[in-house]
Amino acid sequence: MSRVLLTGATGLIGSRAIAPLLAAGHEVHALARDPHAIDEDRDLTANVNRHAVNLLDWETTRAVVYEIEADALLHFAWYAEHGRFWAAAENLPWVGATLNLLRLFGEAGGVRAVLAGSCAEYEWGADGICSEVDTPLRPATLYGTAKHATEMVASAYANATGLELAWGRIFLCYGPGEDERRLVPSVIRALLAGHEADVSDGEQLRDFMHTDDLARAFVELLDSQVDGAVNIASGEGVRLAEVIALIAEEIGRPELVRLGALPRREGDPAKLLADVSRLREEVGFERRISLGRGIRDTIAWWRER
Amino acid sequence: MSRVLLTGATGLIGSRAIAPLLAAGHEVHALARDPHAIDEDRDLTANVNRHAVNLLDWETTRAVVYEIEADALLHFAWYAEHGRFWAAAENLPWVGATLNLLRLFGEAGGVRAVLAGSCAEYEWGADGICSEVDTPLRPATLYGTAKHATEMVASAYANATGLELAWGRIFLCYGPGEDERRLVPSVIRALLAGHEADVSDGEQLRDFMHTDDLARAFVELLDSQVDGAVNIASGEGVRLAEVIALIAEEIGRPELVRLGALPRREGDPAKLLADVSRLREEVGFERRISLGRGIRDTIAWWRER
Repeated sequence: MSRVLLTGATGLIGSRAIAPLLAAGHEVHALARDPHAIDEDRDLTANVNRHAVNLLDWETTRAVVYEIEADALLHFAWYAEHGRFWAAAENLPWVGATLNLLRLFGEAGGVRAVLAGSCAEYEWGADGICSEVDTPLRPATLYGTAKHATEMVASAYANATGLELAWGRIFLCYGPGEDERRLVPSVIRALLAGHEADVSDGEQLRDFMHTDDLARAFVELLDSQVDGAVNIASGEGVRLAEVIALIAEEIGRPELVRLGALPRREGDPAKLLADVSRLREEVGFERRISLGRGIRDTIAWWRER
Repeated sequence: MSRVLLTGATGLIGSRAIAPLLAAGHEVHALARDPHAIDEDRDLTANVNRHAVNLLDWETTRAVVYEIEADALLHFAWYAEHGRFWAAAENLPWVGATLNLLRLFGEAGGVRAVLAGSCAEYEWGADGICSEVDTPLRPATLYGTAKHATEMVASAYANATGLELAWGRIFLCYGPGEDERRLVPSVIRALLAGHEADVSDGEQLRDFMHTDDLARAFVELLDSQVDGAVNIASGEGVRLAEVIALIAEEIGRPELVRLGALPRREGDPAKLLADVSRLREEVGFERRISLGRGIRDTIAWWRER
């Protein structure tokens, strides 16, 4: 059992990390700008210690980190406004905020930190399967660059101080609470409302993982002794058209899907998959939520909105 | 003529940038925690606008940057405590402070920024001549990593926003005001006091440039249209033993130098030189202060202490 400092606790993935952290017996200290927004499951969050912190405010962050004196850090918070985050100036203060948090955590006695990175750190090249060992780290975006730069400094800091550090690179995910402008929710909402869903040709190969699996993978990484970069993904490629077809089939409105009605997003690679051998073999993680079940759950969540 | 925001204005190099900035006709706004310490030359600094700012305090920095509305930024400030800076945690907040400053400068209407990087960003490999184009960027230290990570994000931010950005990688320098624990001042002070100077074998090849030349190179880079990374160095290699011999000859006490009395510093490469073709051909910079003259000037400065 560790005392875990969790950031981004109201976010898409961080909110899903609370259950597996508690299930693993950890004492959870959740940081959020508005900690009252941590309300996914009231039975669960009754056991969570909440702290109101804006991580961009270094002084408040210092006080809270020194008050908690956590052993472990699980850091998800970052600027994540849909669409804007790829090129936004807000990535810059999050580099500083993340490094500040890591340093305070280390100086306050922290032992092991797991931080959220991104598949956007990799060069999205010809072969399309990203490996922590072999794929060049040449981010094409400001977001990917900011994440990778943060990893470089965090890792050098960990080496210099003896802190244990792992860096989970997130691929695509979906699940309840996802921004409604993203692919899965936008198709679900259109079809539930009986509207046409305009999408691209859908031939892009991606790795989709449910946020519950994704968050649990991070908790298992935290509880492991694995250091360095680890891809956090299912290891299975699926065409976007297949994901859309699953949604359409479950809702029963396949005729509303208009494949090819939209162009592909600029810079969108044909294939973006993950080599998950580190996650499977070293961390021992296995996916529990199949794409079919995950999509059904996500549709059920949107039906209740 | 530009309105230039200068940071590190009380530091070893930043303090030397004031004269060439004024000589080039710029309006100089010097930022320093204690701006009254900008007193190298009172005739000169009468023309400098001074601002008391701790760049680690983002709110004060914001207010000052928006008040100045500079066109150009010349940023030298960083954590630089002798010996400690290579592995110090203080490198982390300086990544954040630098990115914060750059963003504020850009958002307040800034056009062109020149930031100070380091030869420590390069892999110090076998061939020993660092090129902006060919040499791998694999820093061996936390300091070098923090500098390089800052460059990566700064450069991606500049690309995303249209800001002009150049990054000057500093090699070795010497001159008045250098920390007395560093090689040149420590040998000068020992010999002036009539003590033995214990040094390493002195076979290491380095590129030494006087801080006046170094600062002027940065000002010329600022006034150029050159973007990206530029090595700031003389382009001439010299053995440490030759530098020491110049000092000993000038002071007239060669018998006090004990070459080989100290081991080399761990990780100290045999050869660390700069390819300066970008600085010479694109920026048009030429060194003015020969090593012999620079050493004489520096000795004269120490005699007056």
